[in-house]
Amino acid sequence: MDLYYHIIPPTSRAILVLANILKLKLNLISIDTKDANEMEMLSKINPLQSLPTLVDGEIVVGESHTVLIYLAEKFDKAGTLYPVDQSKRTKINECLFFDTNMYKCFVAYSMPVVLKGMEPNEELMEKLLVCVRTFDRYLENRSYAACDHLTVADVSLFQTIAALAVIDIQKADYANVNRWYEKVHSEMTGSDEFQAQCERALRAFLAKQLPN
Amino acid sequence: MDLYYHIIPPTSRAILVLANILKLKLNLISIDTKDANEMEMLSKINPLQSLPTLVDGEIVVGESHTVLIYLAEKFDKAGTLYPVDQSKRTKINECLFFDTNMYKCFVAYSMPVVLKGMEPNEELMEKLLVCVRTFDRYLENRSYAACDHLTVADVSLFQTIAALAVIDIQKADYANVNRWYEKVHSEMTGSDEFQAQCERALRAFLAKQLPN
Repeated sequence: MDLYYHIIPPTSRAILVLANILKLKLNLISIDTKDANEMEMLSKINPLQSLPTLVDGEIVVGESHTVLIYLAEKFDKAGTLYPVDQSKRTKINECLFFDTNMYKCFVAYSMPVVLKGMEPNEELMEKLLVCVRTFDRYLENRSYAACDHLTVADVSLFQTIAALAVIDIQKADYANVNRWYEKVHSEMTGSDEFQAQCERALRAFLAKQLPN
Repeated sequence: MDLYYHIIPPTSRAILVLANILKLKLNLISIDTKDANEMEMLSKINPLQSLPTLVDGEIVVGESHTVLIYLAEKFDKAGTLYPVDQSKRTKINECLFFDTNMYKCFVAYSMPVVLKGMEPNEELMEKLLVCVRTFDRYLENRSYAACDHLTVADVSLFQTIAALAVIDIQKADYANVNRWYEKVHSEMTGSDEFQAQCERALRAFLAKQLPN
């Protein structure tokens, strides 16, 4: 299977983590969203141009959360990462759409600051913090995001929360988020090495982007 | 079933349209997101505080796209609105997450203009237009968004596209979007009357919000 992706966004990283959990080998093709030729190539494969995009034979799956669901349904033999039970799936779907919203708030705040060196916009930061506080409150009596075990909801939300460190939102300030993060982290084998690799890629990326 | 909702956002309207298609009676409870007491009440029912929120007995389903999937899975006896076939579901999921992104771009641009009378932000408008152009291109050889028949993807995207008129984006400028919109419109019985009712509610809402 081919995965068109970029190492920086949490949305792509989540797929790499899930592939690791499922022991899948993906043929990784990095796409630069600022390069018109590469985006044109991507749009021929996936007209919605969403990254990451997975190509599995004749099936093309675009958008991170959709790819997570697809891979879990097809390759998770234990059936725990996206269980067939409707009430569990409903909870997972709810978390995945919540994650999409939180991620969009993260992008809206961070991209102008990180890529253009613009002044931080307090209103956009507050919108993002509302998401983080809501998630913290939601996790109060929960060990995992959606079920009583690890699911694709945790895999996806984990990467979004991990990304907040870039803009100095410390997950340690959110007790429930912090507890959940450590638990999920401990269950994803190989994730230490992977997160360190992502961190290095991110620093190299930022060093190229930020104005001197 | 109780539906906590607001008539203005397309995300809530999509549920009302689907309920109409499925001939479901919902007990509608309007929530004002600006009212701290009402939001506190909502957060007790649904800690993620996402609107719309559906309560079906002991099951609480938050977030518009998740509610659409839930209702279609449970009540669509013909099984066409969210078919069990994995490749079809994958395409529908992809469209629902694309819709979430497009809707967030719509909100980011329109809310400051509509609710605060701020100057339009060209960069935010361009981000939204990228979504609309991408959707137009995607629809080039398609009658429906995800499958060869009406699904929850069409129901959801229809309301987002309908909302663009508020900020003077004319769907007539996007040939494929326009063709798709008219086709979907013609298949949703009672939608003329419903869209007119939404339009009136929107105008009344705007009249209260906009500075003189």
